[in-house]
Amino acid sequence: MNRNEIMDVLNFRHSCKVFDDKKKISDVDFEVILEAGRLSPSSMGIEPWKFLVIENQELKNELGAVCWGGKAQMPTCSHLVLYLSRVAKELRFDSNYIDYLVKDVKHLPEDVAPTYKGIMKSIEEVRFKEDNDLEAYASDQVHIALANMMNVAAILGIDSCPIGGIDRKAVEKILVDRGLLDTEEFNITVSAAFGYRVNNPGEKLRQGIDEIVTWIK
Amino acid sequence: MNRNEIMDVLNFRHSCKVFDDKKKISDVDFEVILEAGRLSPSSMGIEPWKFLVIENQELKNELGAVCWGGKAQMPTCSHLVLYLSRVAKELRFDSNYIDYLVKDVKHLPEDVAPTYKGIMKSIEEVRFKEDNDLEAYASDQVHIALANMMNVAAILGIDSCPIGGIDRKAVEKILVDRGLLDTEEFNITVSAAFGYRVNNPGEKLRQGIDEIVTWIK
Repeated sequence: MNRNEIMDVLNFRHSCKVFDDKKKISDVDFEVILEAGRLSPSSMGIEPWKFLVIENQELKNELGAVCWGGKAQMPTCSHLVLYLSRVAKELRFDSNYIDYLVKDVKHLPEDVAPTYKGIMKSIEEVRFKEDNDLEAYASDQVHIALANMMNVAAILGIDSCPIGGIDRKAVEKILVDRGLLDTEEFNITVSAAFGYRVNNPGEKLRQGIDEIVTWIK
Repeated sequence: MNRNEIMDVLNFRHSCKVFDDKKKISDVDFEVILEAGRLSPSSMGIEPWKFLVIENQELKNELGAVCWGGKAQMPTCSHLVLYLSRVAKELRFDSNYIDYLVKDVKHLPEDVAPTYKGIMKSIEEVRFKEDNDLEAYASDQVHIALANMMNVAAILGIDSCPIGGIDRKAVEKILVDRGLLDTEEFNITVSAAFGYRVNNPGEKLRQGIDEIVTWIK
């Protein structure tokens, strides 16, 4: 893909407000979108995310009804993703989750694992004494996965809309009632709708490059 | 770009630890990487970011010396980006920055601008009473831009490494002393090094797709 084609993809991606509810994303395409999330980088490799992929129409409608930012997108999209993020106690250096990451995901040798955990411990002591701060850091990582998934969707000609305007308490209740969320393990962070546009977007309005970039040569 | 080519890009991207300090990214390529940041979505379109693009070797060395997470990457990379994020008071609905966004960037008609600001005000009242929370939300958006820039770099065959392990106080002092940062306006959020790898990466280790995805059909 050359520079012009990349610019086309960047301009194709916009926050799509209404999707064509008759057009479904194919499984093979959505698997690649999910791989873009799964293979995302995260600080210290903590992968604090979980993706709830909702195709169920009833649930999409129910969520759309309680999320002011997703009223039109959630019911009409093909796939709605709710991004969960691990709660603070799951991310502490001595948690079961970190132990699982170290052993079963990273396969760190037994003499290296304590070094990794030691670094995590010292970061926690300096930056993340408060649970809130640790969870904000996890949320940062989840937004990397979110961005990568929207980016890859755009390459595949698939539209998306990130949706932060969600009533977290109401969504939490809906998910807990269906057994889809354990609040001891995960927070709801953000969501995104994926599908195919009905309308063409307006002009992309952004600050100019000189407003947001300073070069130090 | 088809699905296999996308998977190749996702696997090409890794957190590159040492760059070839003789290989520079071309200006035309780096401009596209910056466009990926500039055209990123952000919640409510707040674009809270600023990118300091550092090619200056002395400054890269100086920063590498105070950032444990960037010791090898910062001095060897072609372009180091420091991601700044607007402080809370810049992002309040009644700030000069939001006024500028509404008028000069989004060109909202005079009768629509108050609606936009009203929505921001109500979000602030519900979710962002504390400056910390508003700044965490801005940081989320900056990570979207970060991810998009690394993703586009990978499409262009350019390596990158996100670097969160930075001594913010020390970096702040270095930038303030050079007149590159006004702490009344911006926080330092994260950084990323861009360039070309020296070594091939190891195997990409991640949780399996079934561990991180729940489908609701």
